[in-house]
Amino acid sequence: MGSWEEFYATHLPPADFEDNRQLLKQFCENHLKDQSQNIVLVTSGGTIAPLEHNTVRFVDNFSAGSRGSASAEYFLERGYAVIFMFRTKSLEPFTRHFSGQQFLDMLDIIENGENSSISVKPDSVDVLFPILQKYKQAQETNRLLYVNFTSVSDYLWLLRAACECLAPFEKRALLYLAAAVSDFYVPEEDMPKHKIQSTGAPKISLDLVPKILKPLVSSWVPQAFVISFKLETDDSLLIQKSREALIKYNHKLVIANILHTRRYRVVMVSPTTEQEIVLSKEQVHSGLEIEEPIVNEIVKRHEQFQKPDQ
Amino acid sequence: MGSWEEFYATHLPPADFEDNRQLLKQFCENHLKDQSQNIVLVTSGGTIAPLEHNTVRFVDNFSAGSRGSASAEYFLERGYAVIFMFRTKSLEPFTRHFSGQQFLDMLDIIENGENSSISVKPDSVDVLFPILQKYKQAQETNRLLYVNFTSVSDYLWLLRAACECLAPFEKRALLYLAAAVSDFYVPEEDMPKHKIQSTGAPKISLDLVPKILKPLVSSWVPQAFVISFKLETDDSLLIQKSREALIKYNHKLVIANILHTRRYRVVMVSPTTEQEIVLSKEQVHSGLEIEEPIVNEIVKRHEQFQKPDQ
Repeated sequence: MGSWEEFYATHLPPADFEDNRQLLKQFCENHLKDQSQNIVLVTSGGTIAPLEHNTVRFVDNFSAGSRGSASAEYFLERGYAVIFMFRTKSLEPFTRHFSGQQFLDMLDIIENGENSSISVKPDSVDVLFPILQKYKQAQETNRLLYVNFTSVSDYLWLLRAACECLAPFEKRALLYLAAAVSDFYVPEEDMPKHKIQSTGAPKISLDLVPKILKPLVSSWVPQAFVISFKLETDDSLLIQKSREALIKYNHKLVIANILHTRRYRVVMVSPTTEQEIVLSKEQVHSGLEIEEPIVNEIVKRHEQFQKPDQ
Repeated sequence: MGSWEEFYATHLPPADFEDNRQLLKQFCENHLKDQSQNIVLVTSGGTIAPLEHNTVRFVDNFSAGSRGSASAEYFLERGYAVIFMFRTKSLEPFTRHFSGQQFLDMLDIIENGENSSISVKPDSVDVLFPILQKYKQAQETNRLLYVNFTSVSDYLWLLRAACECLAPFEKRALLYLAAAVSDFYVPEEDMPKHKIQSTGAPKISLDLVPKILKPLVSSWVPQAFVISFKLETDDSLLIQKSREALIKYNHKLVIANILHTRRYRVVMVSPTTEQEIVLSKEQVHSGLEIEEPIVNEIVKRHEQFQKPDQ
């Protein structure tokens, strides 16, 4: 594994990097003035690791962006300014509630010759109204910024830029790193220029992506409340690996979850405690999302963390 | 590379396979009665090849589904019944015109206490109206069926099931295979049960996916008009590889395109001809999509092909 300095030195920033950096800067400067304004960076969705320079094929990480997009909505409800840093085409706050043709199916055409118009079906209004209201509120108070990435290299560039803007918030900054970042990538020098031909079965050599949490916690945002996620498929490794991460990176919290139960069970692992959040079957059926109690618990801990005696 | 028989024998059908097979059957039986009804199977989006049994990581193919979703709309306009077989979360006909928050931004809240309602903004009506109208028409005439897949194995199972239902249409069936199907996959027996641990840099051994076009053309839908796509990044290989495919699989047409120019240039390669379709800069700026002339040309060739003297 190369160092993180080496990674930045050998990977160019994405094409829209300067635009996004400006957006991040303006958004943060805007909210920094209000001393009571907390801010959270929510990262969401998977990253890709291209296998070819002209990217046709890539290794992807499973992540629809459900956790991140839902959490962003609850942080907005709790008054946070939210930087939503997401994988292109993964789920986004508010629109996540509607997929496929659902939007078009909520609309009716009212035929009236040249004055034909479109209306929202009465029973769809009930569903749409509370979501639209929260969306408009976030827009009007300018508390939601979207920035997006695709590759692991895009992600690392954006993350560092976001940290630069978040550092002045000191303890008011929360980092909620829910994106599923590739552990592996194909080093530039090993990458073929063109599409791999399907004449033989290829072997792909992958390199480890540098562990960015290290410089992030120790140097970039040393005063912030940093939360990482640990997703495993094997329950027996989960808590042990979460503890190892806390020791290694020295951040505040790991939210640990198992792929197949992640919608109704997480364990919040801090250096000294473990707290399980579990939804009952009734809660799941009633439409409660686990991100609501997760965010509520985090907001509580973030408040505690900001008290002067801490 | 194993044979296609071996692939089906060693890969289970996806969980929703029987449901989708029933949908395909009903849709086709419904349209088979009308002797003048043409039908097209449009496949769209990329497939994934999982690297682990509990899929966290997978190799993906680049494809947003732009070509397939746009083409499906134009086939509907030309009177075809359309089976739209697409990668979950890739672009879909009609909704493809709106991304991110665009839908929510088209709506206004009309505050009126308990009778608050939602309206479509006047300038959004102009954009939305023609799209909504075509969507409703496709729905009302029952000419659009959606079935979706994620992995290459899902895709192969669905494709064969669709072909079984399409075969009775004989020459009236068109197959427009625009999906970007993985050439490679990790054989079941080489797949680790749990998430690959990031302690070392792994090597992944990939196997070749069997070339399904062979049995499809020769046995499954021997009378249909079958069109495949060839996407390359290297122009010098494009026509040669398209010709090789036509000789190997004995189908009617390859639509050849280069990754970076695919939005305004394709070459239609038949066993005896090559026809370029190119959009001018003016056409691109005016909003013309290349899928419109592509579909028009194909409909012409499909009509020709169906004439009794052919």
